Amino acid sequence: MHGPGDVRVEERAEPVIQLETDAVIRLVASCICGSDLWPYRGIEKQSGPTPMGHEYVGIVEQIGSAVRTLSVGDFVVGSFFASDNTCVVCQAGYQTACLHREPAAPGGAQAEWMRVPLADGTLVATPGVPDPSLVPHLLAASDVLGTGWFGAVAAEVGPGSTVAVVGDGAVGLLAVLAARELGAERIIAMSRHRERQELALEFGATDIVAERGPDGVAAIKRMAGGLGADSVIEAVGTAESMAQALHATRPAGHMSFVGVPHGVSLDAMDLFFSHVHVHGGPAPVRRFLPDLIDRIWSGRIQPGRVFDLALPLAEAADGYRAMDERHAIKVLLELP
Amino acid sequence: MHGPGDVRVEERAEPVIQLETDAVIRLVASCICGSDLWPYRGIEKQSGPTPMGHEYVGIVEQIGSAVRTLSVGDFVVGSFFASDNTCVVCQAGYQTACLHREPAAPGGAQAEWMRVPLADGTLVATPGVPDPSLVPHLLAASDVLGTGWFGAVAAEVGPGSTVAVVGDGAVGLLAVLAARELGAERIIAMSRHRERQELALEFGATDIVAERGPDGVAAIKRMAGGLGADSVIEAVGTAESMAQALHATRPAGHMSFVGVPHGVSLDAMDLFFSHVHVHGGPAPVRRFLPDLIDRIWSGRIQPGRVFDLALPLAEAADGYRAMDERHAIKVLLELP
Repeated sequence: MHGPGDVRVEERAEPVIQLETDAVIRLVASCICGSDLWPYRGIEKQSGPTPMGHEYVGIVEQIGSAVRTLSVGDFVVGSFFASDNTCVVCQAGYQTACLHREPAAPGGAQAEWMRVPLADGTLVATPGVPDPSLVPHLLAASDVLGTGWFGAVAAEVGPGSTVAVVGDGAVGLLAVLAARELGAERIIAMSRHRERQELALEFGATDIVAERGPDGVAAIKRMAGGLGADSVIEAVGTAESMAQALHATRPAGHMSFVGVPHGVSLDAMDLFFSHVHVHGGPAPVRRFLPDLIDRIWSGRIQPGRVFDLALPLAEAADGYRAMDERHAIKVLLELP
Repeated sequence: MHGPGDVRVEERAEPVIQLETDAVIRLVASCICGSDLWPYRGIEKQSGPTPMGHEYVGIVEQIGSAVRTLSVGDFVVGSFFASDNTCVVCQAGYQTACLHREPAAPGGAQAEWMRVPLADGTLVATPGVPDPSLVPHLLAASDVLGTGWFGAVAAEVGPGSTVAVVGDGAVGLLAVLAARELGAERIIAMSRHRERQELALEFGATDIVAERGPDGVAAIKRMAGGLGADSVIEAVGTAESMAQALHATRPAGHMSFVGVPHGVSLDAMDLFFSHVHVHGGPAPVRRFLPDLIDRIWSGRIQPGRVFDLALPLAEAADGYRAMDERHAIKVLLELP
């Protein structure tokens, strides 16, 4: 990305092993994230041309001399943060707060090749090279599925829960899927877009709320026994969506937030009298990857359904435009 | 309280049973709460003369016709909010968010007599009439002990935890005691007052931090393995103390807040990247009362040590002054 609205696909030097814990992978697919739109829209400043992308699946082509769990030829899925997966924070399940955390795709994952630091702790090999039909689903696990899943876990979704999801982007839609997989009984998706509503229903939503603000909160409370949902997952990151999520949670219920909040303050008094448990942050996708890969491999879940547009990597600029204009929920970039 | 700084002890009509679920109790002891200082200092506005106090122990003198669990002559402890203790929110352990919540001391508990609504759900009888030496401890259970205890539970203190407590008022000091009772291994009390430090150590603190702000945070991190405490209990309610608590919590640790926050906003981005679990609110003291009474009755804990000044009810104005000027941690009011 050379600047707001200016995405170019260019030849760059091939990445090489720099540290003995690195791997170099040849990407099989990549994609564009909602968070890539912040700099695209000029809201997040960049200091110059920046390689983009942090979601990826691919084949291991080279490994550093210290890499133990991966072999050349493995098909791998990784998260957006590299983690050692051995430090005390990783062992507690928060690999995105790893003491040695660094970006997993320092050279960008919207690319043919990438170097992945801390490969053992970051990448998870699938049971074999997947059928091409599985690739979009595995790619979704790299971020949006893992993030939606964390949203559901952080909001303590469990068997019988009543859940509300604020946000109908890929993460919100996959939080619906996660809630279903975790046994939720009632799943209320907030969306006013027909295609997204349909995907939410397909992923397991039992109810759709199109209203926003106080009306949306009132609708959720009506559906959730008058008090609010047990678990609310906030997957947007604005002041409005955070307030909506908090107020839609039942007294002493659980609210998670997994969309990076931009300029949002929470009123502590509001939080105090709600008794709501709040937990969020950059999703530790690595914690969930083995389980998510199993569910995808067995055909139990199809999270790749969130990709409603696939383009060759060379046409990445069109992909950004489609997401910016909300013509696409999420764009998959095909590698040659 | 007739206005800021203006406390008067006056004759008022004796309370009577108004609803069949009420009880009338004769107080054995009452006390002054840190929160009573907000209107005393004119920070919280009152519309006119207001009966004060919400912490109490006493003898049941009359019960309404629907009261089932209490008898005349019982010695009882209750919480500051009356609750039915049967609704879905109470059953979840959040009696301070009871669907039928109302003030437990509508006529004030700094008094000789009081009417308690929803008596069955609000009051807990002790095993008998206590020895006078137990009265201060039982009185502490009515609010400050229960609130400190909730702080520890909400911050998920458990066996082996490293805990930090922000605030050295009665609630903070009793959060130290609660953390010890719940099995914490290391308990760091933040205090710069010698008497309060000593009481914290007596209640189980293993370390004292006198520094505040970033220095205080750095000191806690040094003591807690470099990353911060597993559990941090915020017992003040200011922006500074909330920030201090958040930053002193280890990544993905637990922070509770039990001091009513006055004009405090939490930065959502700060919270996001901390991965900290946040939970707080008006403490559901009723949840803990049976257990707390057991621990006091058996002599295991002496929470009443926070009362460092006892005055006859008639001298309540002096008690307010002593707490306002921080000559006393907490003032017990003796009934004739």
